Amino acid sequence: MIMDDPFGQDRLGILGGMGSEATAHFLRTLAQRSSVAADQEHVPFALLSCPEIPDRSSAVETGDARVPAMIHARLRQLEQAGCGAVAIPCNTAHYWRHDFTASLQVPLIDMVSVTAERAARLGARNAVVLGTRSTIRYRLYDAALKGFGIQPIEVSDEVVHSTHCAIALAKSGNLDSSSKQLAYSLAASRALHPDIIILGCTELPMVLPAATKDADLIDSTTCLADACIHWWRSRLELASERTNLTCLQLDR
Amino acid sequence: MIMDDPFGQDRLGILGGMGSEATAHFLRTLAQRSSVAADQEHVPFALLSCPEIPDRSSAVETGDARVPAMIHARLRQLEQAGCGAVAIPCNTAHYWRHDFTASLQVPLIDMVSVTAERAARLGARNAVVLGTRSTIRYRLYDAALKGFGIQPIEVSDEVVHSTHCAIALAKSGNLDSSSKQLAYSLAASRALHPDIIILGCTELPMVLPAATKDADLIDSTTCLADACIHWWRSRLELASERTNLTCLQLDR
Repeated sequence: MIMDDPFGQDRLGILGGMGSEATAHFLRTLAQRSSVAADQEHVPFALLSCPEIPDRSSAVETGDARVPAMIHARLRQLEQAGCGAVAIPCNTAHYWRHDFTASLQVPLIDMVSVTAERAARLGARNAVVLGTRSTIRYRLYDAALKGFGIQPIEVSDEVVHSTHCAIALAKSGNLDSSSKQLAYSLAASRALHPDIIILGCTELPMVLPAATKDADLIDSTTCLADACIHWWRSRLELASERTNLTCLQLDR
Repeated sequence: MIMDDPFGQDRLGILGGMGSEATAHFLRTLAQRSSVAADQEHVPFALLSCPEIPDRSSAVETGDARVPAMIHARLRQLEQAGCGAVAIPCNTAHYWRHDFTASLQVPLIDMVSVTAERAARLGARNAVVLGTRSTIRYRLYDAALKGFGIQPIEVSDEVVHSTHCAIALAKSGNLDSSSKQLAYSLAASRALHPDIIILGCTELPMVLPAATKDADLIDSTTCLADACIHWWRSRLELASERTNLTCLQLDR
């Protein structure tokens, strides 16, 4: 009986609020990329929105262990609520992803991995990553990109700063000003002639100037949404195979 | 210690997925209407997204009791997870709101009431309500509007149908076609010269044609978001008053 299911049973677990509007944008992307005809075909999920978690970029820079501990505790709650996998629509939080993965029983759908994989599938040999100060300076994407044979291209301090401003403006609701800062970051990145530019912060796809939605951009929000949909549908198919299992007649 | 908090402790509880993109639009509205400068000032919430809940409009028409029972069970789970209030960004589900309210210990932030109250504050003496077939035909808003002295204006079967099409198209991701159906509903409603038109379905604000965002429209999604923000901030102020309480020195 569905009413007796635990809170998050078999659902996707999402840890959101980093930031809140970026989480809403992720959920919109999740709904739109599902391309379904009716309400009932969408991905079911439990979302814990925790805007109180302090700034992730500063925590990476200062080594403040409270922040990954808070994220980890909330992921554990999603797991304990019965969720079958967890996802975090915040790139910077993935700085501690190996620690989270090591102590969770359920899979973390890793935004950095699935985004790097998309870059590889598009044939990129090198890439610029735009994100928070710490995502760029602490090279969040480097290992994942190199694992696919993709060379990360370093950006200037000006691009780190304009991208930081784009993110801070988006978080404070100044979407138009944010778009302009992002446009500067994109133009300066393109001057380096990368095969691919990765939007490695969930605030950025939300403020992407319409004219710049080009083939050289990979949006980590869309990559995570696609991976979540894939996880859910694989799980559904598995459940359906189990239901349809017809055993050999061994008693003939 | 925040890590020991129960799952939804003191948070807003949201029952979503009816439909999924409308829920994302509600969360975007919640974030934008909060008008805050940093991540940490947003409303924290636990969201259970249950797209599997069957069509609410059909359930009202056929009297299928399973649907309100499913909604009720999920609201109870949000309550049991520690949420301090619950909200449902789906107007049609409010058909059973008095049953939900009667059996919950925490308040249900009632979308129909807060939307009718907004119409009253704007000085409306009469109103057209656009929503699902059952929201219009079963007069979901009538009692709340009349409670504020506002006379509901009946719409034609054509408007019921075009609005139904707008909602179904939005649910299937055809936002442009949906907008056109809604534009027809709005034009036909305006021909009745209402003081106010209420967008009484969470799919509709999402597809509102830009040119029709006029002063005669009240958007139930925005009204619910504002009421949720108000609930959260009142709660914060109450907590702050408790913390700052200075007792009389009775032992002098």
